Amino acid sequence: MPERTADEIFKEFKEHSIAEFFKKNRQMLGYAGKVHSLVTIVHEYVTNSLDACEEAGILPDIEVKIDEIGEEKYKVAVKDNGPGIPKNYVGKALAQILSGTKFHRYVQQRGQQGIGAAGCTLFSQVTTGKQIYVKSGTANGKAYSCNIGIDTLRNKPVISNMMDLPADQSFRGLYVEGEFADVKYENSDHGVYEYLKRTALSNPHVQIKFISPEGKEYTFMRAVSAVPERPKATKPHPLGMTVNDLLEFAQKTESRKLSSFLLDTFARVTPNKISEIKQIAPNIDMEKDPHMLAWQDAEELIKAFSKVKWVAPDASFIKAIGEEQIRVALKNILNPEFMNVVERKPAVFRGGIPLIVEAAIAFGGTAGKKTEEGYEGNILRFANRVPLLFDSGNCAITVAAKSIDWKRYGIDMDSQPISIFVNVSSIYIPYSGVGKEAIAQEDEIIDEVKLALMDAARGLQRYISGKIHMHEEASRYNIIMRYTKQLANDLGSMTGKNSKDIEKKLEELVAKHYPKVSTNANKAEEAKEVESSEEEAGAQEAEPEE
Amino acid sequence: MPERTADEIFKEFKEHSIAEFFKKNRQMLGYAGKVHSLVTIVHEYVTNSLDACEEAGILPDIEVKIDEIGEEKYKVAVKDNGPGIPKNYVGKALAQILSGTKFHRYVQQRGQQGIGAAGCTLFSQVTTGKQIYVKSGTANGKAYSCNIGIDTLRNKPVISNMMDLPADQSFRGLYVEGEFADVKYENSDHGVYEYLKRTALSNPHVQIKFISPEGKEYTFMRAVSAVPERPKATKPHPLGMTVNDLLEFAQKTESRKLSSFLLDTFARVTPNKISEIKQIAPNIDMEKDPHMLAWQDAEELIKAFSKVKWVAPDASFIKAIGEEQIRVALKNILNPEFMNVVERKPAVFRGGIPLIVEAAIAFGGTAGKKTEEGYEGNILRFANRVPLLFDSGNCAITVAAKSIDWKRYGIDMDSQPISIFVNVSSIYIPYSGVGKEAIAQEDEIIDEVKLALMDAARGLQRYISGKIHMHEEASRYNIIMRYTKQLANDLGSMTGKNSKDIEKKLEELVAKHYPKVSTNANKAEEAKEVESSEEEAGAQEAEPEE
Repeated sequence: MPERTADEIFKEFKEHSIAEFFKKNRQMLGYAGKVHSLVTIVHEYVTNSLDACEEAGILPDIEVKIDEIGEEKYKVAVKDNGPGIPKNYVGKALAQILSGTKFHRYVQQRGQQGIGAAGCTLFSQVTTGKQIYVKSGTANGKAYSCNIGIDTLRNKPVISNMMDLPADQSFRGLYVEGEFADVKYENSDHGVYEYLKRTALSNPHVQIKFISPEGKEYTFMRAVSAVPERPKATKPHPLGMTVNDLLEFAQKTESRKLSSFLLDTFARVTPNKISEIKQIAPNIDMEKDPHMLAWQDAEELIKAFSKVKWVAPDASFIKAIGEEQIRVALKNILNPEFMNVVERKPAVFRGGIPLIVEAAIAFGGTAGKKTEEGYEGNILRFANRVPLLFDSGNCAITVAAKSIDWKRYGIDMDSQPISIFVNVSSIYIPYSGVGKEAIAQEDEIIDEVKLALMDAARGLQRYISGKIHMHEEASRYNIIMRYTKQLANDLGSMTGKNSKDIEKKLEELVAKHYPKVSTNANKAEEAKEVESSEEEAGAQEAEPEE
Repeated sequence: MPERTADEIFKEFKEHSIAEFFKKNRQMLGYAGKVHSLVTIVHEYVTNSLDACEEAGILPDIEVKIDEIGEEKYKVAVKDNGPGIPKNYVGKALAQILSGTKFHRYVQQRGQQGIGAAGCTLFSQVTTGKQIYVKSGTANGKAYSCNIGIDTLRNKPVISNMMDLPADQSFRGLYVEGEFADVKYENSDHGVYEYLKRTALSNPHVQIKFISPEGKEYTFMRAVSAVPERPKATKPHPLGMTVNDLLEFAQKTESRKLSSFLLDTFARVTPNKISEIKQIAPNIDMEKDPHMLAWQDAEELIKAFSKVKWVAPDASFIKAIGEEQIRVALKNILNPEFMNVVERKPAVFRGGIPLIVEAAIAFGGTAGKKTEEGYEGNILRFANRVPLLFDSGNCAITVAAKSIDWKRYGIDMDSQPISIFVNVSSIYIPYSGVGKEAIAQEDEIIDEVKLALMDAARGLQRYISGKIHMHEEASRYNIIMRYTKQLANDLGSMTGKNSKDIEKKLEELVAKHYPKVSTNANKAEEAKEVESSEEEAGAQEAEPEE
């Protein structure tokens, strides 16, 4: 076989766009199976809506409607009451991969990549040849509508039918509608209904209405009506910096001196800290122009940073869900018999990126997963309140949960109705893939989740062992009580005293020995009533039929 | 809290490059842990070298050298004897993400994305601030060297120090050298040594020399010296097309008629098939200009395609490793006591993309994984001969292997020294992520792998049960033989005949009853010798010390 030269081979050399890449590799974006793909579409639009509402300071109202329009072909429409998108940005926002308002900012949001919505447009186009339809109304009452496609060769939006809506069709928020083939609606653990249910669980301030392809309407009621605090952008912490990061910040700064650059750019840098750095790295000239910073100097600075005793990164700009809100949401959606919610103190990963882990364990109610034999535990994973339904084996949360010896806590994940809830909040979530379905297995994240879950498990352990103890006492109490009447009668006829009086005295005697059981027994009926009325309150959300 | 308008929010809107994206999310490219990151670097360079050699028709000789140059800082150098890279392409080939010779062609290669090598350049730059150093010599004997970095904001190469090498430094092939921090060399199941060992296993025609940071030299000897056939580009099969694909091909064609477009563009389309399509979809005008093809027509055509009885996609351009080559490689690297190699017939996934699955089971020798208690089975995964070391839980191969009830085959994966080998060959491998560490869980791929493994398992089952049977017979044989001498002596003194003669006759009698065992027993010594001399032949590769 004759050899081929490099020149012959490289005649084939070409550049290609990121849109072409994901068109060919759409499974990397979460378009990996028909049911999965439909969830991905809903996920991308809902995530964007929630982020937009929160950035605008609006309590979100979301409506998701899915219609079957052909064989494995569906129309998906998502409507929100958010700020809308300005006309001059709508094309890029919805049809240019790697553009958006989030990627470059140090701010906690659900989305962070600028890929999701454009991915939907791409998926619609390659499976149905259709553009997506958009209506957007901004605060000033002006609304427009248009169709948007994507020029995949150039990764650029293609806009058509742009028109202003007349005043009587005025509209506030964003409405996106697309047609998608190669997708399938299914009521399963990995379906759209479950996705929205979990979204409601981690976002008790959101109201979500869902109209399924069968025409059924479900409403996940808002459980908390406080507008969540707007996520704030922050400065990066010196400990989270790599040498390369530091150099890039130095290139962009307007400061003229290294010291003022450090003071202006990073959190927790004070004049005192500058002095500390000077002592640790006396070779570094703090008067130097930061734009002239060389790699070696930057490397020395980063080394010095690691030796300074810093105040921990400010976690105030990380908004966790909050213990009380998780409690309300769990009550609302799972109505468990017992729950234990744990919020860890802020921690850091990769040296200086702050994160907060919240975990909860819910027992009973609709917690856990029904199986043929009974129940088994399930893990509800969230990242910045976004439910993660796929690729669980690859996720730091699952790895942490599986590393725990649950039996030590008297918990049997294979047979008990238990739901484990974990939410990881951070300005930067290190997803393992572009599809954002699993959190990368960073050691610090796994450790934090593990500690939170172990803490939550201890609470459930106390409850379960109390329950077992109570159950044993109740058995004994019931056995004794069964003989009380007979004993009272016998004693009555033996002593000639009133056997009713004797029975009452005997009962009091027994009750003294089993105070908890007897009180509970009295209150049992009462409690039952309260529970059932609460059940009704939560029941505006009806479970779909299997 | 006052609401923010869309205009205020969208002031933050920005576009960003794919290089910026991966700089921030490098874990998605396989830079997810220190040991893992070092393997990723070696993997990207070795993969490119092997592809280049095969495209040029050269028997590959690869040398990998890793030096520790600081704390978690290493220099990695990879040298091949391939065709080199033309000077005018070297920057883009090594430092522009999403460019290359492979992405757009229908040809089976290891790489397919045009991301890997540029990812290494990016990783070197952000961890050490250094450019990579390249030397390339093409067939005509001319060689040059240069340094290459990446402008991440624009995703463009930055080349410096370009110089032609004098004739006395003439060089044939490609030499790439880079410095990387945040990496670590480790001898483990997920380390560089294991990666190269597995590369040798799936590429018996390759010679790999590895010089480890401790200065140890390992050579994985070439086991087969036939130059593998050059991968051929092919036409796509109609069944593998989506509507969108068809339209894009129609846009690009030089044909003037729909019929000639179909004949020219796709495999297996003949004038007869065109007539068949006409009958199935009489509305389609075959005289039509393909550039005018509308979505609906294309959709109808795709539907018609699915009803035509096609000749299966031509799998001749998919090059599997080959049964004999796998056998030689397993012998060379694992030297197993038993092996069974299975090559499945070509199959298709996603309607029309052909794939070939090869599987092998090796038992004994250095197969399996040593544990504290003994052994356990391990799975060696390959895609187009490239070893997959990470993200195994997420991979179609692992999912298929785990779905098999091994005990039914008398195989215990928890205690036996077994290695399962699976290679999936295709023009397009649907990786689950950009890091190409797992094959997406497409049903057809899982099924094919499962069938191949079950077939391989049956062979091992026969061997193991034969072994058990043999072991039982051998025990009986040995027990009887123990008494033969005594019996011969007794019979000798009783009858007065020569007891030696009697012993010989008795032995012959027993041997007749246990023919296999006795033959084996005679040949045991002989076999031992053969094995040990073969061991020596394979032993030019020394195991690294733990």
